[in-house]
Amino acid sequence: MSEEVEPGRVRVRLDLSYDGRDFSGWARQHGRRTVQGELEEALRVVTRSAEVFELTVAGRTDAGVHARGQVAHVDLPGELWAAHRERLLRRLAGRLPHDVRVHRVAEAPHHFNARFSAIWRRYAYRVCDHPGGVDPLRRGHILWHDWPLDVAAMNTAAEALLGEHDFAAYCKRREGATTIRTLRELRWERLPDGTVEARVVADAFCHNMVRSLVGALLFVGDGHRPPAWPGEVLAARVRDSAVHVVRPHGLTLEEVGYPADELLAARNAEARNRRTLPGAAGAGAGCC
Amino acid sequence: MSEEVEPGRVRVRLDLSYDGRDFSGWARQHGRRTVQGELEEALRVVTRSAEVFELTVAGRTDAGVHARGQVAHVDLPGELWAAHRERLLRRLAGRLPHDVRVHRVAEAPHHFNARFSAIWRRYAYRVCDHPGGVDPLRRGHILWHDWPLDVAAMNTAAEALLGEHDFAAYCKRREGATTIRTLRELRWERLPDGTVEARVVADAFCHNMVRSLVGALLFVGDGHRPPAWPGEVLAARVRDSAVHVVRPHGLTLEEVGYPADELLAARNAEARNRRTLPGAAGAGAGCC
Repeated sequence: MSEEVEPGRVRVRLDLSYDGRDFSGWARQHGRRTVQGELEEALRVVTRSAEVFELTVAGRTDAGVHARGQVAHVDLPGELWAAHRERLLRRLAGRLPHDVRVHRVAEAPHHFNARFSAIWRRYAYRVCDHPGGVDPLRRGHILWHDWPLDVAAMNTAAEALLGEHDFAAYCKRREGATTIRTLRELRWERLPDGTVEARVVADAFCHNMVRSLVGALLFVGDGHRPPAWPGEVLAARVRDSAVHVVRPHGLTLEEVGYPADELLAARNAEARNRRTLPGAAGAGAGCC
Repeated sequence: MSEEVEPGRVRVRLDLSYDGRDFSGWARQHGRRTVQGELEEALRVVTRSAEVFELTVAGRTDAGVHARGQVAHVDLPGELWAAHRERLLRRLAGRLPHDVRVHRVAEAPHHFNARFSAIWRRYAYRVCDHPGGVDPLRRGHILWHDWPLDVAAMNTAAEALLGEHDFAAYCKRREGATTIRTLRELRWERLPDGTVEARVVADAFCHNMVRSLVGALLFVGDGHRPPAWPGEVLAARVRDSAVHVVRPHGLTLEEVGYPADELLAARNAEARNRRTLPGAAGAGAGCC
């Protein structure tokens, strides 16, 4: 997890997408099919290496969550990178299962770290409230909510959640990890095709945070709770059993934001400092 | 298949979508899972009827082909329609498997016939030529073609195919069926997400016609054949083994066009006449 690349190695950035349905999430786990596991194995095979090169990722997505703009990095021996760089993308495409795709492979800029350099993560949560159900071609990444949704009410409710807060009420507790985050954007829109989509941007997210926020806002949208409720839950700073964690398949990590190359070193120093301040927020505190 | 509704029955129009992957096409077949079979069974169950009400469809799609704007009709006993009309959509949603969805149910206008009243069918064929492969969330309805495509060359080639022609070179032969069709539109576009999409509109299509046309044009797009070739194949009016029928999963029936309600009777008379003229084109001649 260091920001320094070992001598003789080259840090390579991978941009990738996956359909989370058949994965037990990103992180490698013994005996389970994970995105990290599939990618590391494909990298090992196409580079004909005995060594497994460990990936570091921007967003450690949970089981069933998708990604379209996921970013990871891996440190490869210089001679191996030189030998494979031209054909690595196509070889990975030939080797990887069809539910995970690498769409860009490039030498990372100096001081780049896929996890610690990231300044924001953007997720989308997609919902369909049509009484007939979800478009069958997109049912794998859209939740069916069989109550008509009031998008304006959901947006009113979302306003109270924006900014820096302790999101303990919307996070699965983890020992020693801070739950303070800065929610930059949380906005719902009804698209021309009738589906309803949330755009959710934060510096980082705690475990289950997006799905809990969406669960609270859907209760507002369908009229079960007033628009003030999600903000009241937030202010209480304790898990509220009335907040439902919605199903993972509506959630997609769409994009990860990084500073301009020349600001990467400063960003890493900042992320490191925030991690070491007790109780402080930061991208390093077990978040995704 | 008559245009007349039996006395005491009400003709009901269904608008529907499906993911064709796990279906052996539209048409009911003994021992196979088909869209017609699933829908007719769901209709029978939700109306608590002993009788199976037969559906008539606008586009009899092949195995693996999807639909987003499919249209069908069914003639239901008047009292049964009266008892179920309000809740039929939601009940079907509760009963149907998730790969087929009815998104609208309504009494059809006078003289409406889902198949014979249709004046055009619009299909989309979706292709991705990125070396890394297809977006995993859409891999079920986009073909991966691992050669860069020249969209302008494909559009030049497509121009020679427009208009009324005998499409025998691009159709699977069926005894006694005409292969004369009017191709109104065939246009490729590279979308902002990088995928390449064909919009294909005709009065009707012979069996395999869209997939054969797309196969010929992809050979132009990737540089294996010159832009004049698809028109030469058409002019020869015989099946050409060099034309590859592309895989079904890139193909989606997007929309079916009908005339205004007051023109339906005239349209049906026209469709009937064309069907009875030997060798003439028409929506009735075993097409989809």
